[in-house]
Amino acid sequence: MHPTFTHPIDVRYLEVDQQGVVFNMWYLAYFDDALTAFLAHRGVPYREMMERGFDVQLVNTDITWRRGVGWGDDVGVAVSTARMGTTSFVLDFSVRVEAQECVTGRTVYVVIATDGSGKRSIPDFLREALDPVEPLLGPVG
Amino acid sequence: MHPTFTHPIDVRYLEVDQQGVVFNMWYLAYFDDALTAFLAHRGVPYREMMERGFDVQLVNTDITWRRGVGWGDDVGVAVSTARMGTTSFVLDFSVRVEAQECVTGRTVYVVIATDGSGKRSIPDFLREALDPVEPLLGPVG
Amino acid sequence: MHPTFTHPIDVRYLEVDQQGVVFNMWYLAYFDDALTAFLAHRGVPYREMMERGFDVQLVNTDITWRRGVGWGDDVGVAVSTARMGTTSFVLDFSVRVEAQECVTGRTVYVVIATDGSGKRSIPDFLREALDPVEPLLGPVG
Amino acid sequence: MHPTFTHPIDVRYLEVDQQGVVFNMWYLAYFDDALTAFLAHRGVPYREMMERGFDVQLVNTDITWRRGVGWGDDVGVAVSTARMGTTSFVLDFSVRVEAQECVTGRTVYVVIATDGSGKRSIPDFLREALDPVEPLLGPVG
Repeated sequence: MHPTFTHPIDVRYLEVDQQGVVFNMWYLAYFDDALTAFLAHRGVPYREMMERGFDVQLVNTDITWRRGVGWGDDVGVAVSTARMGTTSFVLDFSVRVEAQECVTGRTVYVVIATDGSGKRSIPDFLREALDPVEPLLGPVG
Repeated sequence: MHPTFTHPIDVRYLEVDQQGVVFNMWYLAYFDDALTAFLAHRGVPYREMMERGFDVQLVNTDITWRRGVGWGDDVGVAVSTARMGTTSFVLDFSVRVEAQECVTGRTVYVVIATDGSGKRSIPDFLREALDPVEPLLGPVG
Repeated sequence: MHPTFTHPIDVRYLEVDQQGVVFNMWYLAYFDDALTAFLAHRGVPYREMMERGFDVQLVNTDITWRRGVGWGDDVGVAVSTARMGTTSFVLDFSVRVEAQECVTGRTVYVVIATDGSGKRSIPDFLREALDPVEPLLGPVG
Repeated sequence: MHPTFTHPIDVRYLEVDQQGVVFNMWYLAYFDDALTAFLAHRGVPYREMMERGFDVQLVNTDITWRRGVGWGDDVGVAVSTARMGTTSFVLDFSVRVEAQECVTGRTVYVVIATDGSGKRSIPDFLREALDPVEPLLGPVG
């Protein structure tokens, strides 16, 4: 069992609002960055996936904010596969500052063809990259 | 019973990504704009609420994407109160293009004091503004 | 002589940084919104311009910040044509809060073909829309 | 003479617009990131500077776009001091993709006190960090 992949985040000054914490929408930017880094780390650079005719589309996300994150904080986003279906998969994200969990997200993606023809079964090379299924945020409902 | 409040959105060119649709994170910006407009429409300008010592903080959001929204589309965000608790409340958002529902969000807010002392009961003036409870997205679980 | 066109801006909470003022990059978003509104006001909706085979590309901008703009401020961006050349034109922008000039920008655009074939002479319909030349920020150097 | 400091940029998918290139405003985000990294590299972490009572404020920027930058491009921002005055200084930025200059910016900053009392002379520790003056974009006018 490999340790949880963690993507480091450099919080931008502009992402921090008047209350001194990262504004909520930027976590979706962090999750998007973390998805790309996670797939690349598992051997599937995003561009290569698209060249092979596949893309992924976000269909649902559920985010919980527990603590704010500030400028200059040492931030990492842990990523893990929470479920794999036929055409869709679920990733868990945990935004941490020095081991403290601040924000969590569970996101459902569907695999689509880049030619606009719609949903596709998860191809084998992506299935292998997403394996194993190890939810960070409890069982998938 | 009053009709559902709808906040118009001018999609910015910069919010549309390479796939020709609004990138996912901007919906959280739209919801934030819609919250502010909704409260103002119900007689609670955000600044006034803060001057009275109250602020609201996002603690959870659940967003579902059904269809993309493009630049130049005629976009509105319908907003309605889905639940009121003691210190927290839930809003439902529905992003529509010409009556077609594209993206929905259900968001939980907690009322806090602006002096940093933490959670507060929903004050009467805010409770009246949020009333009535009319979920857009089905019953609150 | 018609009065200077002014595009109203709703500052988003997320655009305001820890210092309580709009972060610098968002002014380029405001200018982009103002360009689109200015052209539409002069009878050239952006989409229509593109359908006729023309687009405009930003090649240079010069921005000066004099005063910060805050959340809830009553903001307008005045727009005026500062110069017209053969393939390029210059717009002046002035971001004002209740008649006070806060931020100014002078931006050079080049007209390009939407088919990727490069620069084009400013077409007549666009030339008429941009007319008259009335710089807001002094003569063009 | 030390080589020009270069700050690497990971272009985010969301920063790329419908034309397949980074939307103009994000370059101001890149310059802000590069400023922070440049100062840290020269021994002045931004937070430390603020704790010593000093901040810097952007008063003018002049940006020229020559070529678009795309998602996945190997991007770096070269940074160099172009001028030092009494209370203000000028930085030159050059955004490069594999040695090709795509976008350049020249930005004027003024040093201010963090206590709101206004402009300050550039303190010695910052003057040393900004030294030497080596413009990237030609002499300062």
